[in-house]
Amino acid sequence: MDAIRIDFLQFCNWSPAIFAQWRAARLGAVHATVAYHLSFRAVVDGIVAWNRRFRDHADLIAPARVADDIDRAAAAGRTAVVLGLQNPMAIEDDLGLLAVLHDLGIRVMQLTYNNQSLLGCGWAEAEDSGLTRMGREVIREMNRLGMLIDLSHAGERTALDAIAHSARPVAVTHATPSDWRPGGRQVSPRLMQALAASGGILGLSLYPHHLADGSATTLAAFCAMAARAAETMGTERLGIGSDLCQDQPDEAVQWMREGRWMRPDPAAPRPRFPAQPEWFADSRGFDALETGLRDIGFSAAETGMILGANWHRFLHASLRPAP
Amino acid sequence: MDAIRIDFLQFCNWSPAIFAQWRAARLGAVHATVAYHLSFRAVVDGIVAWNRRFRDHADLIAPARVADDIDRAAAAGRTAVVLGLQNPMAIEDDLGLLAVLHDLGIRVMQLTYNNQSLLGCGWAEAEDSGLTRMGREVIREMNRLGMLIDLSHAGERTALDAIAHSARPVAVTHATPSDWRPGGRQVSPRLMQALAASGGILGLSLYPHHLADGSATTLAAFCAMAARAAETMGTERLGIGSDLCQDQPDEAVQWMREGRWMRPDPAAPRPRFPAQPEWFADSRGFDALETGLRDIGFSAAETGMILGANWHRFLHASLRPAP
Repeated sequence: MDAIRIDFLQFCNWSPAIFAQWRAARLGAVHATVAYHLSFRAVVDGIVAWNRRFRDHADLIAPARVADDIDRAAAAGRTAVVLGLQNPMAIEDDLGLLAVLHDLGIRVMQLTYNNQSLLGCGWAEAEDSGLTRMGREVIREMNRLGMLIDLSHAGERTALDAIAHSARPVAVTHATPSDWRPGGRQVSPRLMQALAASGGILGLSLYPHHLADGSATTLAAFCAMAARAAETMGTERLGIGSDLCQDQPDEAVQWMREGRWMRPDPAAPRPRFPAQPEWFADSRGFDALETGLRDIGFSAAETGMILGANWHRFLHASLRPAP
Repeated sequence: MDAIRIDFLQFCNWSPAIFAQWRAARLGAVHATVAYHLSFRAVVDGIVAWNRRFRDHADLIAPARVADDIDRAAAAGRTAVVLGLQNPMAIEDDLGLLAVLHDLGIRVMQLTYNNQSLLGCGWAEAEDSGLTRMGREVIREMNRLGMLIDLSHAGERTALDAIAHSARPVAVTHATPSDWRPGGRQVSPRLMQALAASGGILGLSLYPHHLADGSATTLAAFCAMAARAAETMGTERLGIGSDLCQDQPDEAVQWMREGRWMRPDPAAPRPRFPAQPEWFADSRGFDALETGLRDIGFSAAETGMILGANWHRFLHASLRPAP
């Protein structure tokens, strides 16, 4: 098998055209966000929609419930889809809904999305008081089930608490280092080191607001950042989580930021999606990444690790019940 | 392995004491009703409760998601539990919720419960116009998934339509012949013959309202009824679906009959649970059934078929996805 490519975070307006781009990009697996702020019931509707896509487009995609599904899909020339949630709203205050969502195929969940949640705190709050009582219970249950804990969008204290509390390695699926793109949404050297020390993975994001020069960021600058991140964390701790939001209307970014919990000033400008860097307009940008990572000095093997082999190894360890 | 015993319908107020009776009765599997009239969301709560029981009482019970789980549980000295619904309310009007409920472990669903539903008609309506458009779609999807169609509580026309429309054998999990206990809730010779001809199974009920003399029905009378049913359908088409409602408050039978859809006359007497025949007070009555069936003339092998082997064979064929 060729070195597997994995993009461990996308939130696109899913379509056969996008699935065909996954195949053109030779993506072996994609982690697809089902929901940001949705209720349990609405997440079930999102899963029903994915079940239908899996049947209607079985020539292009396949569900990934265990890591072996990724290998089976790759062998059959299909892209395996790992379903995830960017917010724990869907479990309400019921630990039992984690096993329910796991049975329905959800394999990744963020503890927080920007704001404070029942489990901990997001990066955008003024104060982060760390992991909550329920947060500790949820981590234990996710560890038991083999559901991956994603600390993207978490506050740093909550993230460090979660790394310390989790019996299994965790991930930040989509972010960049804050010493490259400043801001609480990105990851500090301290967090990167803690993540690496625990055996976790950082998925490097290609969302323009996570890039040093936004949409104008060059491939070389992105790859130089990856090289510095590898010095901090080790090459084996890096992956890609592009955060591609292809073909989404601007209402989608408004939904991400505002959900139903905010009433923004109607006179204020509404958020819009930024343009992707021209070298990563869609999943086929993995070809440019391969070139850029080689040009910055990564070996072919190291490049393959960052573009998928690290996620692949990590998922084989993570997506199984605790022994 | 000893001949396996299976009770393919109980709706008890579940407790470790009842699970211990299952073990004392050497039940290899029980089909447990999760819901009568409950919404999707409430059924999920019922499944969460079962998931918790499976963990808390793993020494006594185990979930049965595939037929091999029944054999594994039997080998480990545990009773396998097949989860089912007596009403299709939980799928709302969304075919996609069948796969969702299947992923959560539901393996049996009735198309109707006494009343007309979106899928067909129950026995208690004045007129049964048969399987609906959605009913046909649901049967096709249940056939695909390997979810067993249960025609208990259906109207006869709906039941005959369903037998004719289903590509796989169906069941009436809990009823008795209407020429023994008259009434639309029971099964007519015509329905019994159609069920048998299609490869289905009738689970004989031990609920007093399904017995010729109610709570006073003798073991010998029950077994004589079974012998006549075997003449009509063939011994290999009979099983047990006791309809035990142990330890339930009378509110449970009111809920079954009235749900939320009825406002009964407050002056009218409220329904109450009848007393079980003394020879079938709980699952350990399987010992009495074994004696009674032998006494009426069934061979040891035939008795074993009725007490579990028929369901066992049928479930091995039914609880798997269509090829």
